Amino acid sequence: MSSAAPSSFPAPTNNLVSPLLTDLYQITMAYAYWKTNQHRRIAHFELFFRKNPFGGSYTLFAGLDEVLKFLANFRFSDSDIDYLRNTPQLSHCEDAFFDDYLSNLDCSEVIVHSLKEGSMAFPRVPLITVTAPLGIGNLIETTLLTLVNYPSLVATNACRMVVAARGQFWEETAGANPPRAYSPPSKLNRGGGGGMIGGRGGGTSSGGVLGDSLYFSKTPRKSIQLAEGGPLDFSRKKPRCVEFGLRRAQGPDGGFSASKYSHIGGFHATSNLLAGKILNLPIAGTHAHSFVQSFTSLDSVVGASVKRKKGGSDDMVELLPMALQYRQETGWTDTNDGELAAFIGYASSFPDGFLCLIDTYDTLQSGLRNFIIVSLVLDDLGYTPRGIRLDSGDLSYLSLECEFVFHQMADRFDRSFFFDLDIVASNDINESILHSLNKQGHAITMFGIGTNLVTCESQPALGCVYKLVEVDGKPRIKLSNDMEKVLIPGRKVAYRLFGEAGWPLIDLLVGVNEADQPSVGERTLCIHPFMEQKRVAVVPTRVVKLHRLVFDGKNGGVVLDKVSSLDDTRQFVKDQINHTRPDMLRYVNPGEYKVSVSEQTFRFLHNLWQSETPVRELR
Amino acid sequence: MSSAAPSSFPAPTNNLVSPLLTDLYQITMAYAYWKTNQHRRIAHFELFFRKNPFGGSYTLFAGLDEVLKFLANFRFSDSDIDYLRNTPQLSHCEDAFFDDYLSNLDCSEVIVHSLKEGSMAFPRVPLITVTAPLGIGNLIETTLLTLVNYPSLVATNACRMVVAARGQFWEETAGANPPRAYSPPSKLNRGGGGGMIGGRGGGTSSGGVLGDSLYFSKTPRKSIQLAEGGPLDFSRKKPRCVEFGLRRAQGPDGGFSASKYSHIGGFHATSNLLAGKILNLPIAGTHAHSFVQSFTSLDSVVGASVKRKKGGSDDMVELLPMALQYRQETGWTDTNDGELAAFIGYASSFPDGFLCLIDTYDTLQSGLRNFIIVSLVLDDLGYTPRGIRLDSGDLSYLSLECEFVFHQMADRFDRSFFFDLDIVASNDINESILHSLNKQGHAITMFGIGTNLVTCESQPALGCVYKLVEVDGKPRIKLSNDMEKVLIPGRKVAYRLFGEAGWPLIDLLVGVNEADQPSVGERTLCIHPFMEQKRVAVVPTRVVKLHRLVFDGKNGGVVLDKVSSLDDTRQFVKDQINHTRPDMLRYVNPGEYKVSVSEQTFRFLHNLWQSETPVRELR
Repeated sequence: MSSAAPSSFPAPTNNLVSPLLTDLYQITMAYAYWKTNQHRRIAHFELFFRKNPFGGSYTLFAGLDEVLKFLANFRFSDSDIDYLRNTPQLSHCEDAFFDDYLSNLDCSEVIVHSLKEGSMAFPRVPLITVTAPLGIGNLIETTLLTLVNYPSLVATNACRMVVAARGQFWEETAGANPPRAYSPPSKLNRGGGGGMIGGRGGGTSSGGVLGDSLYFSKTPRKSIQLAEGGPLDFSRKKPRCVEFGLRRAQGPDGGFSASKYSHIGGFHATSNLLAGKILNLPIAGTHAHSFVQSFTSLDSVVGASVKRKKGGSDDMVELLPMALQYRQETGWTDTNDGELAAFIGYASSFPDGFLCLIDTYDTLQSGLRNFIIVSLVLDDLGYTPRGIRLDSGDLSYLSLECEFVFHQMADRFDRSFFFDLDIVASNDINESILHSLNKQGHAITMFGIGTNLVTCESQPALGCVYKLVEVDGKPRIKLSNDMEKVLIPGRKVAYRLFGEAGWPLIDLLVGVNEADQPSVGERTLCIHPFMEQKRVAVVPTRVVKLHRLVFDGKNGGVVLDKVSSLDDTRQFVKDQINHTRPDMLRYVNPGEYKVSVSEQTFRFLHNLWQSETPVRELR
Repeated sequence: MSSAAPSSFPAPTNNLVSPLLTDLYQITMAYAYWKTNQHRRIAHFELFFRKNPFGGSYTLFAGLDEVLKFLANFRFSDSDIDYLRNTPQLSHCEDAFFDDYLSNLDCSEVIVHSLKEGSMAFPRVPLITVTAPLGIGNLIETTLLTLVNYPSLVATNACRMVVAARGQFWEETAGANPPRAYSPPSKLNRGGGGGMIGGRGGGTSSGGVLGDSLYFSKTPRKSIQLAEGGPLDFSRKKPRCVEFGLRRAQGPDGGFSASKYSHIGGFHATSNLLAGKILNLPIAGTHAHSFVQSFTSLDSVVGASVKRKKGGSDDMVELLPMALQYRQETGWTDTNDGELAAFIGYASSFPDGFLCLIDTYDTLQSGLRNFIIVSLVLDDLGYTPRGIRLDSGDLSYLSLECEFVFHQMADRFDRSFFFDLDIVASNDINESILHSLNKQGHAITMFGIGTNLVTCESQPALGCVYKLVEVDGKPRIKLSNDMEKVLIPGRKVAYRLFGEAGWPLIDLLVGVNEADQPSVGERTLCIHPFMEQKRVAVVPTRVVKLHRLVFDGKNGGVVLDKVSSLDDTRQFVKDQINHTRPDMLRYVNPGEYKVSVSEQTFRFLHNLWQSETPVRELR
């Protein structure tokens, strides 16, 4: 092998990512290859998964950027070599294995092709292929899997949640960049909608009476279409999703990766500051229950004041007296004092970012009312309150009730900001709850999602595998009693065939040396890899070759123009989701997307399978 | 605050662990505390969980070591401060907040008490308590949760799997250190057992005939007692568990942490080399399917040889001719040639560690037979073969069948090593499958567990919370419509009361200033925190105060004699499991362990609850 390292490229984000972050058996195999002189045979590996996660119809491929960093910097350190040399399992190995082989090993002979990061991917179509000498090709297996499995899983989970929350992916104009900071949707790109929140005071109080009333007594709203098959058309803001999962993640970089890859999947912001700093992601967050609890009486906010922004003067104005006046005026004198103090304290610190958690003591009887009292004060002084967060209870009922009271207040005090308030919900939200909330109706404008997003609770592992499919030009197969686990042998080219409707029809795997490769307008026979009867003739309007060269160790390593920014990848995801067969986005029983093989590949697979399988005898 | 940093202590293992690995709202709250001059009030926080994971009766506390590293090294970097200063949400904040407060902030005023690492922990009993100025006490919340949640979850999951696999925790003598390397159990500490595998050739072939037969036609074995309530008494080795999860973990340090904390939970070894290197853990692994696939014919191992270890001479002996002779002798001439070549290649590289994956082509017709052929050769040359690994199919049937054939071979060729072979199983093992295998019967001696261990598939998050319970000596409460979420306010001392049987009876939380603290031999009233009628009088034979000072910022930071080694923690876990009420270890409907409060704490909680709750009116 060459000892010239591939061109320099940033190190992996996590310092644990190194050649030794792998399984022992990769090293024992490397030794056995080296010892039997197999290590330089050219092998071809495919990294793929066998089943889409979450009962869904697609997977988003993610993690390529860290894979490239790992490959570009692959080198065992001296202390790694020392460690290996002294492990009991390897202590008998010949010195030359460590000194000549491992010490000099890098990825200069490795060639990697992959899907574009953010691609919708389907079972058996490789996310990544590796062509390399057998030794190094095997050694990178575990690390590559670790770097692809979770990012792809969490990006997919995030995207599914965004689709569930919004009923469609994004309403912004294609190409618009997501904002760099937590700005409530009211200020940005509000699309669709109209109706009851379109105008100040419009239509909201007509059916209600002042005082608390249940949401079903209100003015009828536009009916809510369910997410199946088409966009929702709420007469409200389309909810956004924000990632709040760091504390519940599976380790620090579980949290960091969740922030990163949920952005690709369409999340609007993260609470994670380190991800904000390193990845330049929009961040979000205001305060917790402990903040509210820590204030015990109104005394603690005597003197808390903000600069007046309207009415000509810019004097400092104390908030407490004004708040007490509104408290008197509304008659809400029994709200929790500590909570009111906390909201005043928060308002004096963040007059432009006043969003309060209102369920510390009692959501409707205390939190909501204290928020409204302080909101009115801020509005008087020229600041626009942001909204509320609900973290417990019946989110459908509470959000609608809060919205209703806001609309009452808009009317009573003649203030328009009440129509633009965010209602953030954040209590153990998952994809199923999002769909359920759509059915129940709600007034939530933003979902804060933690545990279920970052741990991918309904399926916490994707199950990618990395399989040898060819050695020295000879296709290899692995058999299994479980048909799903049988490999499609040999190097293949993967195509995505598009139809007249503009969306992809089918993926097709064709042996790399086959004469017939698909092309636009030509009839192509596509066969299920294991069931000859399942076949279809496709005349594609567009044919996309799915894999691109992303790493070529001999020629400078990482192919730089194939590295996408996070925002570009996010946009690519959005474009694909917006051009996907609608039935594939269903939550229940989504339509399946087919992955097929050419006729020649089908024959080849089944002949090899036959020839490698001993005939069993039963007596 | 003091600007003298606590004494030096190693940095966190993961470079991402830093003060900025937190939620934005910790910083916005810090600013609001600072701005309203609350930041120096002394607060008391509790880190606890509300429900044991996996439907179980206990949780193992883990992650303390990384918490201490984080606290000892807590300092915002200049670039962190720059980043914060320029985030849109914080850009209006006063410079002094960044320059005077955050820039100088460390944990020199933080005091932390915790359970001993590895402790069995129960809902509501704090794992960690923090006493600190409100500002810094809040700022460390998210990172502490991230560092405790997953380690505790995965240690608990591991321990449950070990209990399931072995029927009891360990059979070794208490205090024995686990070996530092992958040595098959046959060589180490084999306990219990006896019976059919106690002697060479004993009793195994009497009921069988040569050739393939189904396992139920064999000599009856000692019946298997199920794990409910007592130790299994297999007439075989007690299976060990090995961690194989890196590739499926949620990110690189999800994998690393799983290796670390599953060791605490009783796992025998890990495949993860980096964990082996950094933590000095035993490692395990041999080869994968790809190794077998990569060998295409017997030609590739012509010349592969090992040094003869018995028979007087130490010449190099070629393996292939001897293998072909045994192939002839057994009549197993139609096994897969590539596989036989791979096994010969592996044997020549690891003659002392010959353990083969046998299911690449056909487990019983090819893999098992090829393994036996090469085993016989190695045994002839003085090497002891290790065993086989099964990675697909019916593990109960296949393991019993393999064992049966081994015993036939022992008889036929008069070789005792066949009785000591390991049978490793590794296909999507989880706790439920372990229990199911116990019921079905199996001959597995080692389980390789990956995905389900490291992702904690049946419950991927523990859900620890970090709650403010006191400020400046005033107990604080958080209410909730969900009774489970109501806090027990104030600083409390936690006791574990032991009974005459030697195991813990109940945990008891007592207000720190209460006159009556429990003591040995005295009758103590213990009340359910929310249901007055659920109470019990306990006369403890032993009273253990659960929390210990582990970090004192003013006095040198980490209290070094409270930092346990991984092996000590593992031993502590084992001792506790071996002295636990047996019903608590049941898989289905385990007995609950009670956590109670003193009468005075009960009254105090309910009075405060009453006084902070507004009376709702329904009309």
